[in-house]
Amino acid sequence: MPVVLLSGGLDSTTLLAYVKSSSANPDIHALGFIYGQKHVAELTAARAVASFYNVKLTILNLPSEPFVGGELTDPDKPVTQGASYSEQRISRPVATVVPFRNGTFISIAAAYSQAHSLGMVYYGAHADDAARWAYPDCTPEFVQAMQKAVKIGTYQAVGLLAPFNTLTKAAIVTLGNKLNVPFELTWSCYVGGKEHCGTCATCISRQQAFADAGVSDPTVYESDPKMT
Amino acid sequence: MPVVLLSGGLDSTTLLAYVKSSSANPDIHALGFIYGQKHVAELTAARAVASFYNVKLTILNLPSEPFVGGELTDPDKPVTQGASYSEQRISRPVATVVPFRNGTFISIAAAYSQAHSLGMVYYGAHADDAARWAYPDCTPEFVQAMQKAVKIGTYQAVGLLAPFNTLTKAAIVTLGNKLNVPFELTWSCYVGGKEHCGTCATCISRQQAFADAGVSDPTVYESDPKMT
Repeated sequence: MPVVLLSGGLDSTTLLAYVKSSSANPDIHALGFIYGQKHVAELTAARAVASFYNVKLTILNLPSEPFVGGELTDPDKPVTQGASYSEQRISRPVATVVPFRNGTFISIAAAYSQAHSLGMVYYGAHADDAARWAYPDCTPEFVQAMQKAVKIGTYQAVGLLAPFNTLTKAAIVTLGNKLNVPFELTWSCYVGGKEHCGTCATCISRQQAFADAGVSDPTVYESDPKMT
Repeated sequence: MPVVLLSGGLDSTTLLAYVKSSSANPDIHALGFIYGQKHVAELTAARAVASFYNVKLTILNLPSEPFVGGELTDPDKPVTQGASYSEQRISRPVATVVPFRNGTFISIAAAYSQAHSLGMVYYGAHADDAARWAYPDCTPEFVQAMQKAVKIGTYQAVGLLAPFNTLTKAAIVTLGNKLNVPFELTWSCYVGGKEHCGTCATCISRQQAFADAGVSDPTVYESDPKMT
């Protein structure tokens, strides 16, 4: 049974749909994590997505101390507004990076999959996040290193795949649209209000991906001109 | 400040002593983990060791679901008695392997180190555990893959070192003896009684390492002829 890292965002939800549509075994075990993020709107979305696709979702509680310091976990650092990823990516680390979070998620998913005799672990990293090494744990180089570690460390019982690693977010929207992904159930916004803020970097990226893909964006944005 | 993965066992305690003696910065941050192991005698030992060396120890609580299934975590599987590692290593996975546990520890230590601007992560894997791929997450191949992942995934802010990766456990005892490691404070036994049982695989391995190194073993073993 494949294991899918599911944050409840657009990318991992499309990944779930992709694995479900292409796998010989349509049963999937999704894993989500609580790691000290400021809001859990994404996990609410993950639950809705898992329910929609009728897959089992396990949410695991991690200690928060290893993941502090960035805008997603530090209550004293408000999420930057009005700047796209490209504009933010001048400094390193990027303000919304969570230290080695995805490496930890992959490791725990590998453990979980080995412990419960499941199978391949799927990870939704894509090319836009990897661009210019902004999110280093989304790069093909990182994925390849973790693939090797997972394979060796589990007696080759578990593998790691990141099928979107060379796709842009717009290409993921195109694929998701083809697979009838319920985009309206997914959550991207870093702020975590009642609706997507529309002005944080990931909201800007989400809007741009729909625009570039030429797919209608069902998301309600607080700052959306349509809403004012 | 170096980060040392400290289980409270003989190997990681000697590693701590080694890093403390060889580092330009004698301040060390030790990390221990609760992951659903049946007993926490090793963490009691880790606390005693950290206190002896006057280093900060943080013990992190992980969910137990990803690490189930082996003799160290499954209450229905008693720890095998009377068989050495070599005798047990015929089957895969080895009964006392914990699924991808060490990969998870390394990942979380990398996160912690990056989040708190610490430094190199030290891991006490040694050659006896790696022999014949018994514990695959102790092999140099695994360490090299994780080194690459940690380096890439932290913007090269954090590195991983396993200085004992080519040493036998006996060589670690020799080194520890030279460094005046308080072996009597360390804990190896998988059973976790009042004293070391003396008959589980890791007790056999501990006794053998002292014997091979020609170093007096201060451990009290329940089955020790000296004690009966």
